Amino acid sequence: MHQPHLSAEEKQHSHDHLSLDLIEAQYQLKNSAGKKNAKSVLVLVSGIELAGKGESVKQLREWVDPRYLRVKADPPQLLTTNQTFWQPYSSFIPAEGQIVVLFGNWYSDLLTTAMHVSKPLDETLFDAYVNSMRAFEQDLKNNHVDVVKVWFDLSWKSLQKRLDHIDASERQWHKLHGLDWRSKKQYETLQKLRQRFTPDWVFIDGEDEALRDREFAECILKALKDVPDHVQQADAAWTQSVVPQALLQPSSEVLEKAKYKKKLKKLTRRVADALRYDQRNVIVVFEGMDAAGKGGSIKRIVKRLDPREYDIFTISAPEKYELRHPYLWRFWTKLQNCSDIRIFDRSWYGRVLVERVEAFASDIEWQRAYDEINRFEKDLTDSQTVIVKIWLSISKEEQEKRFEAREKTPHKRFKITEDDWRNRAKWDEYLNAAADMFEHTSTDCAPWTIIATDDKPTARIKMLKAILKQLKSK
Amino acid sequence: MHQPHLSAEEKQHSHDHLSLDLIEAQYQLKNSAGKKNAKSVLVLVSGIELAGKGESVKQLREWVDPRYLRVKADPPQLLTTNQTFWQPYSSFIPAEGQIVVLFGNWYSDLLTTAMHVSKPLDETLFDAYVNSMRAFEQDLKNNHVDVVKVWFDLSWKSLQKRLDHIDASERQWHKLHGLDWRSKKQYETLQKLRQRFTPDWVFIDGEDEALRDREFAECILKALKDVPDHVQQADAAWTQSVVPQALLQPSSEVLEKAKYKKKLKKLTRRVADALRYDQRNVIVVFEGMDAAGKGGSIKRIVKRLDPREYDIFTISAPEKYELRHPYLWRFWTKLQNCSDIRIFDRSWYGRVLVERVEAFASDIEWQRAYDEINRFEKDLTDSQTVIVKIWLSISKEEQEKRFEAREKTPHKRFKITEDDWRNRAKWDEYLNAAADMFEHTSTDCAPWTIIATDDKPTARIKMLKAILKQLKSK
Repeated sequence: MHQPHLSAEEKQHSHDHLSLDLIEAQYQLKNSAGKKNAKSVLVLVSGIELAGKGESVKQLREWVDPRYLRVKADPPQLLTTNQTFWQPYSSFIPAEGQIVVLFGNWYSDLLTTAMHVSKPLDETLFDAYVNSMRAFEQDLKNNHVDVVKVWFDLSWKSLQKRLDHIDASERQWHKLHGLDWRSKKQYETLQKLRQRFTPDWVFIDGEDEALRDREFAECILKALKDVPDHVQQADAAWTQSVVPQALLQPSSEVLEKAKYKKKLKKLTRRVADALRYDQRNVIVVFEGMDAAGKGGSIKRIVKRLDPREYDIFTISAPEKYELRHPYLWRFWTKLQNCSDIRIFDRSWYGRVLVERVEAFASDIEWQRAYDEINRFEKDLTDSQTVIVKIWLSISKEEQEKRFEAREKTPHKRFKITEDDWRNRAKWDEYLNAAADMFEHTSTDCAPWTIIATDDKPTARIKMLKAILKQLKSK
Repeated sequence: MHQPHLSAEEKQHSHDHLSLDLIEAQYQLKNSAGKKNAKSVLVLVSGIELAGKGESVKQLREWVDPRYLRVKADPPQLLTTNQTFWQPYSSFIPAEGQIVVLFGNWYSDLLTTAMHVSKPLDETLFDAYVNSMRAFEQDLKNNHVDVVKVWFDLSWKSLQKRLDHIDASERQWHKLHGLDWRSKKQYETLQKLRQRFTPDWVFIDGEDEALRDREFAECILKALKDVPDHVQQADAAWTQSVVPQALLQPSSEVLEKAKYKKKLKKLTRRVADALRYDQRNVIVVFEGMDAAGKGGSIKRIVKRLDPREYDIFTISAPEKYELRHPYLWRFWTKLQNCSDIRIFDRSWYGRVLVERVEAFASDIEWQRAYDEINRFEKDLTDSQTVIVKIWLSISKEEQEKRFEAREKTPHKRFKITEDDWRNRAKWDEYLNAAADMFEHTSTDCAPWTIIATDDKPTARIKMLKAILKQLKSK
């Protein structure tokens, strides 16, 4: 992209024009929030030190309305085995209408990791990370977060020249990668590594400062103006999976009371120990029809645990601000800053259950969600997390009995609402949704367990055993 | 609170009864969310090690529905001079309908600080902290967060006996204060210190385990059932402050263009340096009528800063989930995890401006807000934060001109909405609200500066000078 030589006045005029275009596009984006075809823009910025990424973002922020351009720059961190690459950044994913620029991002972490560890990342692992990152970005795009990746490059010769001339006050920004930019070998390694992921990046040459800033701003302007092409065709010929017998006719096995008490006592202790001493994070997900016994199950799991050791998340309809983010976003952010043991009373499966049945999600959205969920869970299980998924199955007759009992018992009256009766009317639709869910999300790394709950004692014993079994099958 | 001796069966029956009462009260609290007289309950738990606070909370969580009782236990931290005592906990303040138990809390931090520092806190400072904490809790209560404080006590003799008998697996929970519980001198110091704040605490003797758990649960039940007495009388005879001349007739001083450019260049540089090299956090608050030039002012402040050095917060109407918290909560939480330089385009003063004028806040609420805001700002300025508050004053005629210009200019059209015209119709009410705001919140630690903006160049120079002046008057 080359500009003819312009006079100072012509340059100013051209800058003013670009600035106006940017501001207009920015406000259009801002005003799209909550509307059809709303989107947000996430800008990942990386590159060679002193190539001018900081300066170009600074110039961009002068040309736009700075109030609506958020910039985050955390120092790069090593990719660790116990959190996914997106976890440190999940809270900065922009909501509809927003623009966020991330200096520190998953790619800078990947480079840092590859360059720094005593045992460098091998190429297979490096490429596997890149593939996961691209898949995650594709999920973001499908969920209306446009991702723009910009690499600021600089030749070895220019880098050395610039290093000769930086002054002390600027120096603080040039240690971001903690790398030795005077080492040619290191420079070359970095260049080789980044080529493994930059083919789909916007490439900006940092040589000419004015051109560089302008190119960057124009790339952002293009991203802002891009009308996202989210409308894809849903699968008209969606194949409904067969509802498993375990859901149509839950086992009515009954456990004797004395036996139950003894077993329960032993198992709650064993489960507590297994959860407590597992070095990994543990997620236990409960799904199932209303009154199937999610609350009672959770009570038994935590019975022998200290309240400081676990977190229980009770998931209901998303808040309005959560709807302005990708569907899984509220779960990404929940998994930050919590205990190692996380119990979910309902979960992200709401997307393919209630949101499908009630048509809160479009066909394309819930059909796409299976893969999104599988990737989400795979990223977690690859990062030292065990995911136990339990469907509590109840017969329609038993549910009715429990609803009626709840309505008669003062301290249980609060547990039943009109929603529960309304959901019950859609029993078969929920069974169909559950069948598809098992079919598409019972993966090797995070399988589903179906447990019949018409007899609560039997259910609780089986549920505890299922958790133990999965924790032990490392 | 003594119980007669009961048979095992009678005990079980009595426990079941307590559990039912707790669950019923818990659901009532939960269902109160969003309704009149909704509230939340914050339980602060502290005490002597091994007195059983962990066990009592564990027992409580067995008696209640554990899904709706959140427990947080961060290790105590030293009170530092660069954050307020409430900052580490602000995100755990319960929303309406919720119960949160905080093991680590501001009092445990205070005790840790008093016991640990090489130079112990003197009594005056200790008591000043206690007073600020109580004032903060009173603000919470006024904003529908009931605060219950429970001290678990244990005699020196019993503590030593229990220390003899704990097993290794439990030991992890007994280092929470990092104190040597075998030292009698230390025990006595702690007891003496905590007496300076426990008079308004619920006191539980940890000697008898069963009694202890029950007493704690009953204290929580009482808190849950307590109907909060939030309805207080607003001041019927509220004295409206006189609107300052600077608002009625903003100065129309005009700055010559050449002079302005030169001055501006020098000042943006000086302000950037002053902001960057100030060791404290800096908050700049902009308030004022629409089109008074908040956006343009912010642009000039950040012009010479790197986008990674500052955060801009643009404040509009609160989200629904924010309304379930105390009014200032969204600002408490915003001040976590952000850059040292924070610029607010509108702020917490919305409570006494738009919320007062539009009657979103009741009379009692906005009248109370002045003190709440002053305490909030005092806590911040006591914690290494400078607060610069600027009111941009514009004449009614000039506003009209700018509105019309905005409507005619394509890239400014987005900046004007129907709300702006509606606010303009309430001009005098806003002036009255601003007058009261200056009167009640222009404090020594965070004074207001009024700047006339009919001539933008003059306004920008004055605004930058005002920031410099306040940063230099340490």
